[in-house]
Amino acid sequence: MKIKVKKIVLLEELNKVSKALSSKNIIPVLSGICFEAKENKLILTASDNDITIQTYLNEDNENLEIKEQGNIVIQGKYILDIVRKLPDEYINIDVIDDSKVSIYTDNSEFNLNGINKKEYPTIHLEESKNKVMLSKDLFNEIINQTCFAASNDESKPSLTGINFNITGNILECNSTDSYRLSRKIVNLSDINESFNLIIPSKNLLEFAKILTEEDMIEINIFNNKLLFKYNHILFQTRLISGTYPNTSNLIPEDPILKINIDKDLLYNTIDRTSILATDKEKNIITLEIQGNHLNLKSFVAEIGKVEEKMMINNEMQENIKISFSSKYMMEALKAFSTETVDICFFGEVKPIIINSTEDKTLTELVLPIRTY
Amino acid sequence: MKIKVKKIVLLEELNKVSKALSSKNIIPVLSGICFEAKENKLILTASDNDITIQTYLNEDNENLEIKEQGNIVIQGKYILDIVRKLPDEYINIDVIDDSKVSIYTDNSEFNLNGINKKEYPTIHLEESKNKVMLSKDLFNEIINQTCFAASNDESKPSLTGINFNITGNILECNSTDSYRLSRKIVNLSDINESFNLIIPSKNLLEFAKILTEEDMIEINIFNNKLLFKYNHILFQTRLISGTYPNTSNLIPEDPILKINIDKDLLYNTIDRTSILATDKEKNIITLEIQGNHLNLKSFVAEIGKVEEKMMINNEMQENIKISFSSKYMMEALKAFSTETVDICFFGEVKPIIINSTEDKTLTELVLPIRTY
Repeated sequence: MKIKVKKIVLLEELNKVSKALSSKNIIPVLSGICFEAKENKLILTASDNDITIQTYLNEDNENLEIKEQGNIVIQGKYILDIVRKLPDEYINIDVIDDSKVSIYTDNSEFNLNGINKKEYPTIHLEESKNKVMLSKDLFNEIINQTCFAASNDESKPSLTGINFNITGNILECNSTDSYRLSRKIVNLSDINESFNLIIPSKNLLEFAKILTEEDMIEINIFNNKLLFKYNHILFQTRLISGTYPNTSNLIPEDPILKINIDKDLLYNTIDRTSILATDKEKNIITLEIQGNHLNLKSFVAEIGKVEEKMMINNEMQENIKISFSSKYMMEALKAFSTETVDICFFGEVKPIIINSTEDKTLTELVLPIRTY
Repeated sequence: MKIKVKKIVLLEELNKVSKALSSKNIIPVLSGICFEAKENKLILTASDNDITIQTYLNEDNENLEIKEQGNIVIQGKYILDIVRKLPDEYINIDVIDDSKVSIYTDNSEFNLNGINKKEYPTIHLEESKNKVMLSKDLFNEIINQTCFAASNDESKPSLTGINFNITGNILECNSTDSYRLSRKIVNLSDINESFNLIIPSKNLLEFAKILTEEDMIEINIFNNKLLFKYNHILFQTRLISGTYPNTSNLIPEDPILKINIDKDLLYNTIDRTSILATDKEKNIITLEIQGNHLNLKSFVAEIGKVEEKMMINNEMQENIKISFSSKYMMEALKAFSTETVDICFFGEVKPIIINSTEDKTLTELVLPIRTY
């Protein structure tokens, strides 16, 4: 392989694929980025066995000249650092003896030990006949509104994923760590088959980082993996096997008390109340509604107590006292991009439901916490 | 104590004194900020026994109303968080029963357990008859050009400080970790006495963070401490006892080879060469000068090698091969704000001296490292 490539163009593509590099990888070849110079095309691939990212550059007078076809795997962290720090407009990369690579410009020469491409695992990145299209903005919205509620606890693998449930032209996305639930429902163009997928939440977040330009995302669905096609990038993730818990009947109807409230005002008031909250993880606070008064309270024996007051429009004139995690409630509120939200109460030991008349696609559930 | 104070003004002063709060403090009262409401004045003090910061607010119609004089010590992290997050323009702080404090606005009320001021250590912040004046810009320059070269190794206490040596109207500042040396010489207005002080480097860096406005710094010199007066802030630091090593004859004269070189160009070239350098701490690289060619090289058996070339103006036509820490050399170069620097070589096992004809006040020394 012998190529001459424009520095900023190569750096941009290396930055994209490098998101699939893991420093913890136990398979040495996977800490490398695979370079394949084919006819008219340089293909870059990185994988950590969990996700795979592939991108390419087309040969043209401006960006890329392929002098000799071939391939090599180069240590990811070194090639990134070298390309980032070289000041030259163009960089030459020559493979010598199948496993050595020279990266050079007029005044700089790096000779690295590469790895023969034969040692790189074969990764299949074909398309599926089952495809779903989503716009970048809608995809980002789904990720931002659901991923935060997924579990980090690897002992419950299915809860570390987002459940994508596709039936007809409806996509329902659920995420839960068993203390709260986030549900997003969006319309798709009609597809024939139904799918019930569990996608690793952290992989979705990695993919979202690559989404810079306005473009459609083509989701290719397989039994055990998903392949996203976006722009000139292929992003593949495994799916989590197993069954996602049935969340369909978790969201109650007919609240005993429902308040419509300014979202940012409530968020900031909860934020202040939680300054003194006890539990470092969840920051438990207590909410009391009496008539048109909403009080938020928190008390820690050694430190002190806080009480916040808000006036609300209590349509139902019911009263309630309920405790919950301020962290979970704040994350649920932050998921809404609307100005106001509706908070629905069903009883002191029943879930709290947050939704909004301004955006019917999103529902958040937060479980109360018993404090007595 | 009963006060009403403008939020943004209080927050600004709390942020300043909070730099003296240490979360690791074993004396509980020192995790608090001491509030003293006197006639026409609110004084705020924080200390971790190593540094003390005091600032004040004057009573006026706009910023502060003192309704009742008194004092209290309030947990630093809570008072900061509360004041930062309260949305109101004014905040009321009332002391109840000597050791409880209520911080409230129209809709928010925080009741905290404070600590009685009697338990707060007495800290003397009087002026000294020995004073030195420095402008904020010059002080910042000294800090930026010397602190990086001080040692972090607490087993050699004197090397963790910056040596301020005042004789007549000359202030000479030295810092060294025994592998490199930074020397800054500036002129003062004439003072009568001589001083040889070792000031803790990390405390100087803390003080530098407070320096926002253009103003003079008055340094009050004591046997075992320094008191900086700046703006309306008092900042006191202990001095390190002991003798600073004699650095006066460390910098050789008459180099065998001296090159004048673009500072940024050399910095970036060393930065690239060190991508492949071995030692994680020091990143050893080798410099070779042959005639007008300067080569920088680094080699790591498992990974590969790098060679960088630069053309230089070698007036002396001498050659040299010398190895050093790229990290130390880069930090030495970064200390200069000039466009070019002079690199002076005295032999393969002798110190490398960096200075600049554009700024004669600064001299940097980096020791070579034997690689064979």
